[in-house]
Amino acid sequence: MPGSVPRIVMKFGGTSVGDLERIKAVAERVKKQKDAGCDVLVVVSAMAGETNKLVGYCDALSDLHDAREYDSIVATGEQVTSGLLAIALQKIGVAARSFAGWQVPIRTDSVHGKASLDTIDGERLLGCMAEGIVPVVAGFQGVGPDGRVTTLGRGGSDTSAVALAAAIRADRCDIYTDVDGIYTTDPRIVAKARKLEKITYEEMLELASVGARVLQTRSVGLAMRERVRVQVLSSFEDGPALVEGELPGSLVVDEDEIVEKKLVTGIAYSRDEAKLSVRRIPDRPGIAAAIFGPLSEANVNVDMIVQSTGADGTTNMTFTTSKSDLPRAISTLESMRHAVQYEELATDADVVKISVVGTGMRSHTGVAATMFRTLSERSINIQVISTSEIKVSVLVSAEYAELAVRALHTAYGLDDV
Amino acid sequence: MPGSVPRIVMKFGGTSVGDLERIKAVAERVKKQKDAGCDVLVVVSAMAGETNKLVGYCDALSDLHDAREYDSIVATGEQVTSGLLAIALQKIGVAARSFAGWQVPIRTDSVHGKASLDTIDGERLLGCMAEGIVPVVAGFQGVGPDGRVTTLGRGGSDTSAVALAAAIRADRCDIYTDVDGIYTTDPRIVAKARKLEKITYEEMLELASVGARVLQTRSVGLAMRERVRVQVLSSFEDGPALVEGELPGSLVVDEDEIVEKKLVTGIAYSRDEAKLSVRRIPDRPGIAAAIFGPLSEANVNVDMIVQSTGADGTTNMTFTTSKSDLPRAISTLESMRHAVQYEELATDADVVKISVVGTGMRSHTGVAATMFRTLSERSINIQVISTSEIKVSVLVSAEYAELAVRALHTAYGLDDV
Repeated sequence: MPGSVPRIVMKFGGTSVGDLERIKAVAERVKKQKDAGCDVLVVVSAMAGETNKLVGYCDALSDLHDAREYDSIVATGEQVTSGLLAIALQKIGVAARSFAGWQVPIRTDSVHGKASLDTIDGERLLGCMAEGIVPVVAGFQGVGPDGRVTTLGRGGSDTSAVALAAAIRADRCDIYTDVDGIYTTDPRIVAKARKLEKITYEEMLELASVGARVLQTRSVGLAMRERVRVQVLSSFEDGPALVEGELPGSLVVDEDEIVEKKLVTGIAYSRDEAKLSVRRIPDRPGIAAAIFGPLSEANVNVDMIVQSTGADGTTNMTFTTSKSDLPRAISTLESMRHAVQYEELATDADVVKISVVGTGMRSHTGVAATMFRTLSERSINIQVISTSEIKVSVLVSAEYAELAVRALHTAYGLDDV
Repeated sequence: MPGSVPRIVMKFGGTSVGDLERIKAVAERVKKQKDAGCDVLVVVSAMAGETNKLVGYCDALSDLHDAREYDSIVATGEQVTSGLLAIALQKIGVAARSFAGWQVPIRTDSVHGKASLDTIDGERLLGCMAEGIVPVVAGFQGVGPDGRVTTLGRGGSDTSAVALAAAIRADRCDIYTDVDGIYTTDPRIVAKARKLEKITYEEMLELASVGARVLQTRSVGLAMRERVRVQVLSSFEDGPALVEGELPGSLVVDEDEIVEKKLVTGIAYSRDEAKLSVRRIPDRPGIAAAIFGPLSEANVNVDMIVQSTGADGTTNMTFTTSKSDLPRAISTLESMRHAVQYEELATDADVVKISVVGTGMRSHTGVAATMFRTLSERSINIQVISTSEIKVSVLVSAEYAELAVRALHTAYGLDDV
């Protein structure tokens, strides 16, 4: 994959290109990377605030607007940034040209507003780079089968960058953002949180899905499938050109690339949780289907599920949803009270989900036991438990969130000493 | 040309779509025209102020920016408006869809920032209209031979509208603007100026070129070649759907369509004039070439020219340029003082050009004589005279501008009584 000249994708988010001064700073950084002997392709978001402004226009005109028109309008934000950065690069002597999604072309399906990438033709971009020209591609957008502009949905610029990195077989995809890397946990809660040099795709996926929103989940999944090495780093720190072995950010890579494997890589938490308990259901086959079928039809996303049987032969079903799905979940459950014949519906939005993530769990036991013992020692009551191959999650009362995260961070030896 | 269903192009400029409320008002107007049984195609400019903002970004990043990037950036303004208007139309029950220049496609040459229209494929637009959908086309833009976005230069939306009207063989191209028509002269100077019901392409071209900037000159020339009937009317007045015979604006049409021909149609004036006199040049063949060759090479646009020979055998050359060309003209003339051996260079920017325009002049004499007599009666000294088939222009001291225009307006019987 890597040729003699390293091929790097550099992606800059909305705050990184928020005004003309920041665009000039980005140009300087791109120049530095190019001058260090790399072939560079740049992907940009819209200037911070632009997308919201354009979305606001659409919303103000019609609450149910045509998603095809929405896409055509909103995609202009990235088109403007790509042109401006090309001009800023030329101004400091770097040959560059902008590409809108349809010019690459970046082909997508026709699900406007939330399109999925289909194929990216990398030939024009590679041709451009072979002539020493830096392509500056508008992120977040593509073109549908009928030739209309599509967008990938919020955060889609990360996905654009990873997909473009795959299309041009890049050695690395650097995602410049407003944090300087991925941490063992939220540094706002745990002062001793450490920046991770490397993390696996699987771990990143689990962390992203429970609230560590540094990278969009979709982009991590794509990077894993396409084996694109992704670096998360800060666009606000100035430094030298980046060379392998001295990278300042956090690398998201394949497990093979990680020599020193840890049992636990990070502790994540999510406050966007609500607990529902359906109590005293006459126990009979098909209860789960009777409850979760209608919830799914009502677009309620159910996460953790625990079923328990009481001494009286009735069953209790406890599960979690996001806070925004709670009202819809309640009305759906109330409408099935007669059909399911449950006695009581209890809800609690004052909960937090805490997750311990690490690929090391696959080969080591005792991770869950350490978690339960640590929480028990602080008298933190565990309400629901769920596990995956590389993650253990528990639901606890919201008031214990910080205490639990700090205690677990220490217990798994993650503190920066 | 006209089928059973009238086919109308409606073009709205920047102030007509300046904010969301105005875009909604435009949608209502389009609906009215469509409900009256017309097939409608809409062309829009960027929201007022947007183009200037984007141009400002480009200028701030680089004084000599890449025109291809400039085009890609600036063209987003019209793209946004076309999408927003399509949403506003759908909201009130009118099927509509936006088209960027490249989606039509509107093909141009590759002179970025000032591209000329090449071909417009009207088939997709006609297909759209046949399905009852109103196409909303982004004006001012197209796509070059290499697939990059081009713009037609300032005011190019009028040209887009006329070219699209030709491509779909429209019965009429209605240009909605901030004035309600074309007047016999500037109503700010002559209170009795009358709105013209009809004016020929040739007259409109002459009026446009001397300062009555209602329609861009290029668009009028194109309308003349393609025989597109153009109506200029106000977007700020609300009225019923427009039907032939009861049009509220001014129609720019072929001479054949005008039954009642007037000797003089209008009086125009231009303050953007400067006079240069090169005095006492030794008379010999080739003087004109020696002077005007270098001026042309220096991109100085020369308009009126008068050559006079003195009693001493020397020649004087007097001519006019635009005020902005004056400094370049002076430096060019000074650099040729030795070669041409003239004695004196005099300049005067305190002049105004007044023109009397009318196709009736072709068949009637005495138009120029009336002009000279009228000005003479007011003791207005004529400095330079030039004539074309349907125009007589004079250069006079700027202080007489209003007096001269008013006197001529009355003399040719144009006053509204």
